[in-house]
Amino acid sequence: MLAEIITIGDEILIGQIVDTNSAFIASELNKIGISVYQITSVQDDRKHILEALHEARSRARIVFITGGLGPTKDDITKRTLCEYLNDTMVQNQEVLAHIEELFEKYISTPISDMNRHQAMVPSKAQILQNDYGTAPGMWLEEKDCLFISLPGVPFEMKNLLKNHVFPKIIKTFKRPYIIHKTIMTYGLGESAIAERIAGWEADLPPFVKLAYLPNLGKVRLRLTAKGTNKEPLEKAINSATKELYTIIGDIISGEEEAGSLESVVGKLLTEKKLTLATAESFTGGKISEQITSIPGASAYFMGSVVSYATQAKIDLLKVPKKLIAQNSVVSAEVAMAMAKNVRELLKADFGVATTGNAGPAKGDSDAPIGTVYIAIATKDNVYASEFSMGNHRTRIVQKGVHKALEMLQKEILKF
Amino acid sequence: MLAEIITIGDEILIGQIVDTNSAFIASELNKIGISVYQITSVQDDRKHILEALHEARSRARIVFITGGLGPTKDDITKRTLCEYLNDTMVQNQEVLAHIEELFEKYISTPISDMNRHQAMVPSKAQILQNDYGTAPGMWLEEKDCLFISLPGVPFEMKNLLKNHVFPKIIKTFKRPYIIHKTIMTYGLGESAIAERIAGWEADLPPFVKLAYLPNLGKVRLRLTAKGTNKEPLEKAINSATKELYTIIGDIISGEEEAGSLESVVGKLLTEKKLTLATAESFTGGKISEQITSIPGASAYFMGSVVSYATQAKIDLLKVPKKLIAQNSVVSAEVAMAMAKNVRELLKADFGVATTGNAGPAKGDSDAPIGTVYIAIATKDNVYASEFSMGNHRTRIVQKGVHKALEMLQKEILKF
Repeated sequence: MLAEIITIGDEILIGQIVDTNSAFIASELNKIGISVYQITSVQDDRKHILEALHEARSRARIVFITGGLGPTKDDITKRTLCEYLNDTMVQNQEVLAHIEELFEKYISTPISDMNRHQAMVPSKAQILQNDYGTAPGMWLEEKDCLFISLPGVPFEMKNLLKNHVFPKIIKTFKRPYIIHKTIMTYGLGESAIAERIAGWEADLPPFVKLAYLPNLGKVRLRLTAKGTNKEPLEKAINSATKELYTIIGDIISGEEEAGSLESVVGKLLTEKKLTLATAESFTGGKISEQITSIPGASAYFMGSVVSYATQAKIDLLKVPKKLIAQNSVVSAEVAMAMAKNVRELLKADFGVATTGNAGPAKGDSDAPIGTVYIAIATKDNVYASEFSMGNHRTRIVQKGVHKALEMLQKEILKF
Repeated sequence: MLAEIITIGDEILIGQIVDTNSAFIASELNKIGISVYQITSVQDDRKHILEALHEARSRARIVFITGGLGPTKDDITKRTLCEYLNDTMVQNQEVLAHIEELFEKYISTPISDMNRHQAMVPSKAQILQNDYGTAPGMWLEEKDCLFISLPGVPFEMKNLLKNHVFPKIIKTFKRPYIIHKTIMTYGLGESAIAERIAGWEADLPPFVKLAYLPNLGKVRLRLTAKGTNKEPLEKAINSATKELYTIIGDIISGEEEAGSLESVVGKLLTEKKLTLATAESFTGGKISEQITSIPGASAYFMGSVVSYATQAKIDLLKVPKKLIAQNSVVSAEVAMAMAKNVRELLKADFGVATTGNAGPAKGDSDAPIGTVYIAIATKDNVYASEFSMGNHRTRIVQKGVHKALEMLQKEILKF
């Protein structure tokens, strides 16, 4: 059961936007047993769209098309799809009523013919209601291939996919099972891991595939099993995983099914009814931003002091001037004082603090670029670790955030 | 002069990662006059890669290939490319020396045969040195098509592209000019704008293309001109822009060439030697994170208080309890107090504050989801504006950050 995704829009081909829709669609499709064979991004160009549709159809049972459904001249997906399917455009009353309702409710400018024109759809199309916008989703079933056209605006597309497309797909198609398991390791490069597990890898059953995913200095191992029966897949993945622990258990830090680190941390804090405060320097608010990206964070997150300037560490976090002078602002001592003080100031159970130099300039300390300290404070304890995180500004911040959340997770698990 | 991009890796097709490489490559290529015709993402599968290479070659003069260059079994790009070009693999001494040097300097595990194997490359390949990793970039010139293979790790790829690939491309090819100009508007939907500028749009010269880009409730208009001589392109774009101002000048907020809002704000603050502090509630540290994503932000950014919990507004920002009780924590009064106090606490020229309800639950106030207040404080003045930002959590935060930076920019321009 193969699908393909075609994303349409000049803004993708000139690099003005990053196509995040494809990854979302692919990941959701995987969960219901549908593999994506290819993702293709093409221009708002009739000939190019026709070619892409033709090629995707020759390979896949379902073709997802996003983008190019706006009311303006440059958006031509709908009429090109209509042409490709030898269909004619008709006005859909249901869509028209929806557009008129949206305008009445939310839009101050009067509705125009161009807006009403968005109710024109290929006659064969089954309409998928777009709850958040005027461009309808469309389900177009041909004998050999199902075409699903969705708007390119991510939050409109996501809602359509989950609430209108998937229920219909699940009813319509019998699908195989796809199971992924990702095992996280630390401390060894991918080639070193590959050598240690070569025998194990060679013995994997043919329906289980292994991938190495290096990121932020760590390697994740992804196992994928695919087949018509769920049970033997689960069995194979579980027994392979178990065996893997006996071979490289010393470098396995966990499994990824649990979700992002910030959501795991959020879940743990919620369960244990504990609270968190952060004091950030070189991470600039990114820990706080990731923590609060989880709905419900207000139950456990008190707040953060982003003390970017040294003076802010003194004024807001009450880090003693003398401590900074004696140890430098980038030091374990300052990190620990920040963690301890923010925990107390915000009356939280955990205090997390970061200080370091992300470059490009040296800043208020002599620490080399990439040197960072991360500290965790609890009621009874405070400690800091030093790291050297390379010389790439964005990556130093990313690694710092990741490491801080990882240290926090370990600490919460002790409670 | 057309290029295509092929990104290789199962992790893209199962949606485990978002392909950000393509947008980067496409945007950089545009700057040197090369258009990307198509972006194709394929699996780590020999047959599939061969097909993708064949198809891309039939359409483009340069084919960029990223990913699949790791040392492990699942990475097969290099040998598949070699097979496709009827070439044989040879050991490259320069690459071998580089790999050995990287291992000696940065990696604690001993170098293995698998690592050394990364020095095997197609015999026709010209090597592009990967300063940050062991997988070399490769320049493979056939009569009709140039293939450029790059690692998938974004920061390795970016460095290779800018420092090794582009200088070579610029020397090798005569390229046309591509000029983009993006004009930002506010207050009108895309169809309403399209109606107002229909006559102007119809009169655009054939080498100038217009696109409508709606995002976060605003529409940007992108003009693209392409041709062999720079001057007439610039002239056409400039005169079209000038005319556009006479038609919809009332809804134009600026032009986008200047870069992201946070970089514009950073530039202005640096020039005017002014400083900034922020107090964030529903934006959760995202304003701070965006401000500090700009290298050199420490020159003007003092810090931020992310007062997520109401208690943090009282304890850290010294917002009077009574003021909160009288007005609710989501109010113009509280936003203004936050902005004023954070400016004073951090001794900054500007204070920016946000308070609001991003949902999904109602939180510590009766304000409906989507209601937010943003305040700006200077030495002599403080004001707050109220906004209603829909009911989608992530978008409420995005819109809030954008609006706060926009208000700040306007305020800085008065100084």
